[in-house]
Amino acid sequence: MDKDFLLDSETAKILYHNYAEGLPVIDYHCHLQPKEIYQDKKFRNLAEVWLGAGDRYGDHYKWRALRARGYAEDSISGPDDDYKKFYQFAESMPYFVGNPLYHWSHLEMKRYFGIDEIINAKNAKVIWEKANSVLQTLSAREMMKKMQVEVVCTTDDPIDDLIWHKKIKEDSAFNIKVLPTFRPDKAVNIQNEGFAEYISQLASVANTPIVCLNDLTLALSRRIDYFADMGAKVSDHSLEVVRFKNASYEEADKALKKALAGNALSVEEESVYKGYLLLFFGKEYAKRNWVMQLHIGATRNNSKLMYSKVGADTGFDGMGDSSFINNLSALLSSLEEIEALPKTILYCLNNKDNYALTVLAGCFQKQGVKGRVQVGTAWWFLDQQDGMRQNMEVLMQVGVISNSVGMLTDSRSFLAYPRHEYYRRILCSKLGYLVESGQYPEEELQTLGKIVQNICYNNAKEFFNF
Amino acid sequence: MDKDFLLDSETAKILYHNYAEGLPVIDYHCHLQPKEIYQDKKFRNLAEVWLGAGDRYGDHYKWRALRARGYAEDSISGPDDDYKKFYQFAESMPYFVGNPLYHWSHLEMKRYFGIDEIINAKNAKVIWEKANSVLQTLSAREMMKKMQVEVVCTTDDPIDDLIWHKKIKEDSAFNIKVLPTFRPDKAVNIQNEGFAEYISQLASVANTPIVCLNDLTLALSRRIDYFADMGAKVSDHSLEVVRFKNASYEEADKALKKALAGNALSVEEESVYKGYLLLFFGKEYAKRNWVMQLHIGATRNNSKLMYSKVGADTGFDGMGDSSFINNLSALLSSLEEIEALPKTILYCLNNKDNYALTVLAGCFQKQGVKGRVQVGTAWWFLDQQDGMRQNMEVLMQVGVISNSVGMLTDSRSFLAYPRHEYYRRILCSKLGYLVESGQYPEEELQTLGKIVQNICYNNAKEFFNF
Amino acid sequence: MDKDFLLDSETAKILYHNYAEGLPVIDYHCHLQPKEIYQDKKFRNLAEVWLGAGDRYGDHYKWRALRARGYAEDSISGPDDDYKKFYQFAESMPYFVGNPLYHWSHLEMKRYFGIDEIINAKNAKVIWEKANSVLQTLSAREMMKKMQVEVVCTTDDPIDDLIWHKKIKEDSAFNIKVLPTFRPDKAVNIQNEGFAEYISQLASVANTPIVCLNDLTLALSRRIDYFADMGAKVSDHSLEVVRFKNASYEEADKALKKALAGNALSVEEESVYKGYLLLFFGKEYAKRNWVMQLHIGATRNNSKLMYSKVGADTGFDGMGDSSFINNLSALLSSLEEIEALPKTILYCLNNKDNYALTVLAGCFQKQGVKGRVQVGTAWWFLDQQDGMRQNMEVLMQVGVISNSVGMLTDSRSFLAYPRHEYYRRILCSKLGYLVESGQYPEEELQTLGKIVQNICYNNAKEFFNF
Repeated sequence: MDKDFLLDSETAKILYHNYAEGLPVIDYHCHLQPKEIYQDKKFRNLAEVWLGAGDRYGDHYKWRALRARGYAEDSISGPDDDYKKFYQFAESMPYFVGNPLYHWSHLEMKRYFGIDEIINAKNAKVIWEKANSVLQTLSAREMMKKMQVEVVCTTDDPIDDLIWHKKIKEDSAFNIKVLPTFRPDKAVNIQNEGFAEYISQLASVANTPIVCLNDLTLALSRRIDYFADMGAKVSDHSLEVVRFKNASYEEADKALKKALAGNALSVEEESVYKGYLLLFFGKEYAKRNWVMQLHIGATRNNSKLMYSKVGADTGFDGMGDSSFINNLSALLSSLEEIEALPKTILYCLNNKDNYALTVLAGCFQKQGVKGRVQVGTAWWFLDQQDGMRQNMEVLMQVGVISNSVGMLTDSRSFLAYPRHEYYRRILCSKLGYLVESGQYPEEELQTLGKIVQNICYNNAKEFFNF
Repeated sequence: MDKDFLLDSETAKILYHNYAEGLPVIDYHCHLQPKEIYQDKKFRNLAEVWLGAGDRYGDHYKWRALRARGYAEDSISGPDDDYKKFYQFAESMPYFVGNPLYHWSHLEMKRYFGIDEIINAKNAKVIWEKANSVLQTLSAREMMKKMQVEVVCTTDDPIDDLIWHKKIKEDSAFNIKVLPTFRPDKAVNIQNEGFAEYISQLASVANTPIVCLNDLTLALSRRIDYFADMGAKVSDHSLEVVRFKNASYEEADKALKKALAGNALSVEEESVYKGYLLLFFGKEYAKRNWVMQLHIGATRNNSKLMYSKVGADTGFDGMGDSSFINNLSALLSSLEEIEALPKTILYCLNNKDNYALTVLAGCFQKQGVKGRVQVGTAWWFLDQQDGMRQNMEVLMQVGVISNSVGMLTDSRSFLAYPRHEYYRRILCSKLGYLVESGQYPEEELQTLGKIVQNICYNNAKEFFNF
Repeated sequence: MDKDFLLDSETAKILYHNYAEGLPVIDYHCHLQPKEIYQDKKFRNLAEVWLGAGDRYGDHYKWRALRARGYAEDSISGPDDDYKKFYQFAESMPYFVGNPLYHWSHLEMKRYFGIDEIINAKNAKVIWEKANSVLQTLSAREMMKKMQVEVVCTTDDPIDDLIWHKKIKEDSAFNIKVLPTFRPDKAVNIQNEGFAEYISQLASVANTPIVCLNDLTLALSRRIDYFADMGAKVSDHSLEVVRFKNASYEEADKALKKALAGNALSVEEESVYKGYLLLFFGKEYAKRNWVMQLHIGATRNNSKLMYSKVGADTGFDGMGDSSFINNLSALLSSLEEIEALPKTILYCLNNKDNYALTVLAGCFQKQGVKGRVQVGTAWWFLDQQDGMRQNMEVLMQVGVISNSVGMLTDSRSFLAYPRHEYYRRILCSKLGYLVESGQYPEEELQTLGKIVQNICYNNAKEFFNF
């Protein structure tokens, strides 16, 4: 993993070193805690920052890998000793051959800590000590600065008061933009337990009673305004299943009232409600020139046992395999028909859907915008070399890759920024190959360099209006 | 893009230059206008022939790419100035890195116009002038001759009078076979608006009233006979969704009558009708030794807004993602059981279905025919390097690639023939790699050369009986 | 195909020759006939052992390929002359370029018969004679010994008396473990014709009347005990469609009684019954520390015509394309919740499901077991180079490949063991590439060698407890 890691041709090296390497990072979708940024969190040791410890969220990629190795949950997400946790991970590392963790982890050690040792049982102690020593001064903000982060967008609930975003904004000593993202899943997921309870919280935060659909959209639009005041330019929806039906206010209102009264809805009613609400959101986002992100097809908490033990977002989610193109097409088309289709990023969780999704995105373009609807970079389980290469290949073959807004971390960790480097190297490898194999002329190398810079930085800046 | 473009090994070069390069083109499925062939259409400039202009159909691959770049529809499918349209495309070309348009466009400039310039903003003017100068003598027929076209099969509705096919046939000065293809989608798609209206047109053309299913099949068989008289040897069906139910005459007749009376059908009734009709068609094709083509899984007109503005087949179609293997299996098996399964080509639109479809085809073989049911080359959005490579890989691994009838353009353009060259180069690259990596013996190189020739030319000639 | 066949880098060669090559074969899932092993079957000629002849099952991979070439069924599965059958296959071989048969067949000739000739029409006679001469002494058992087979698990019905397994066990002259596998598909597939009849046979074998669900599970647990006595440590289920509903005893019992009374079940009732039974089986396997294998998504007997002519398992099966992740997740989670989720191998038939299935498996891990639920090697139609490479890539990227229990043949043939060699070579090629491209450090080569040995041998031994 030297300076030419993954740069498998001369052109790849030129593209990376001359164009991509020095660019700042725009991380337009992540799950960092703004509180930790504001408070400039310091970490007691490598286990805490890297694996999670105490009640701090951990890295569920690492947790999954450790569970597959057969370790006890106590030493993964549980109360076991920090060094034990770290040692287990170091000891396991060679067995993660071919896994993105192998590359990420080594890049993280290099870039943040200046540690070049191979991570394994033998080197565990020395890495632990070196890293912990660096951590005495390497706080959350320092990590972000070190990685040349320019913008991050966190992921926030409509009822969040965004107090930490506000404080960060007011802190003139800190130049990195930390913007909230409006993620109203709880208001959309009418089928979930706790929906009515959530709506009542929303009513209270938005300072309006919610007894009908107009009340609800009023409350939501107030929260969107509040988010906009706090700098938000992006929204995010997780559509585990794409439910969409273009229905009347009356039908959707009826579904809402039924749910608020504590009754279960049919799939039809759920689709009616969600259809109405998604169209409403599209309108709100479009008129503010926001970007709408749709994360499609996750399955949550597959292991009910582990959900009951360690809760959500701890490494038990999966990829759905159902069909969604027709519903998604209807949603996008309906938005477009009422001139309410915002700039939109579709995230693909299952590689089987790469082509269909990228082709669909190509049907919803707009004058004056590069890639108005576009497929995002390889998401979650696909956020690794094979997934990225497939994602890029498909973007090239049936999309226009030069429009891509590029990489994001989607991470809960301050140590995740080298994934941008990883992405950039793979991008340069793929584009470089085209030149080396005579598929793109060397004479256009400068343009290609510009394309690389656009994908890695400029496109995001322009698309999101940062 | 020199003479060894994409030929990434010595064996690939030998296979291509010694075996594939000089072969004539059989383009057994395209969307050319026979009228333009008969009239030997001349083009006023490169924009008209390449991008579409006036009321002439355009190249929706290029249109999609331009829309993604954010250009105005007026300068894509609309009334804007020809040179402006061309310039936009030339200027965009470097940004289409990795897209098949990049290769196709350059090959087209080279092969038809002798233009070697890289297509970009700087060269736009000189390319425009050179190409337009060549176009003064390079008519439609000259294009076809230049590309060594031997046979083309157009795509035609049963009610078409095939007048231009007739005239071409009678024109002894023109040696290229231009055969109609029987594509009865409008008679099958009972769920569509305008179905009853279409049936009444068909009745009129076939000179028989259609009030029941027997009337309809009589009319259709007359049109099949007429197509056969005009030289047709191929049919084509677009099955957006594969609906099939093996039902009785009475059930299907009832569904037809219901639709003719203007009533909407249930999915069940639609399947009953389509099942009956597809079995009828299979029988008709089989007894004439025709080839049946099934194009599976397109979604049409995803953007309702753009459909209302620029109509069908203009670049707003997509890939479906639903399951169809069970219904397709039932259709093929039912045909086989009544000895009415013709030679059949299954076209796969979504790469996720490559394996399942190719394996299914392997279940329906027949003594005396090589690849009685086979999967066609990568279709539409997959008709590019990645799609072709996957298609070929799957044909090799779970099919018998040496049976393949090879490439077709599926294109509306006279400039599309270099896609045969593109395909041949990729085929030789893939097969050559097997030799170079020790997976196929050099001693069998001559046989491999023969296989290449079969796939690129002989198999189609034999399979279609041209 | 020399000694470095498929070993495309120096590291690949080291990994294969120094670590993988000499290891014994554990073939934990196959379809060999224990009778033929016990009787040490001798083969009258190459056609019989290689292609099938007389009433002996044949190799449906080869049959499919020959059918696609257009040969008559009589000379494939039928009564034609043995040499004719063999000649046809030899003559066709060069046309199977890129197909796994090309590699398997040549490896089989080399490894069992010492035949180095390229298989083609010219060499047919000499190969036929050499091979037949070797076959005079190369019996079934000798083939297994020659290939260093240590364990095989056959596939057996609960009502099987396992007489041949017993005899083999008692035969002290034979050291290879031949263990039965419990495959109760006929007891699960309540929707099939003959279900009631099968249950009555089971009742008789288990020596208990079966009139309710408790009777049935009693009978089945007796048979599981019997299989365990005969050395079984593995079960196997073919879930063509994954039907699962977590229901009460009463509901499931009602469905069983309805089916036994000769009535058709709804999909709901089928799911209720299967859900109950699969949970029952999980419990039984878990408490015996057995491994449960789930083969998911095959479609059977696609050609009804050929099914009526040549029966099941003759080359007319296919890959399903339906969604199953939600049901499978519910099954695994329900088992886990009642502490009855055994070690489990999920086999993926359609490559589109590779990622979703591997990610799902990662959600069901357990302390003290490496890869408690894991995805098996590429199955059936995917058991070839492209399929294996995809399978391995996905295991690496979203799983932990070092946990994999590696290869199995799934074959009916004594000649299939070189597929283990094929797999090992491809595995070493893939892992070697990571080292060569700087993605895994050379310093860890010894650990990587150990990982290779684990995947090829040790993991299976430990996981299955052989």
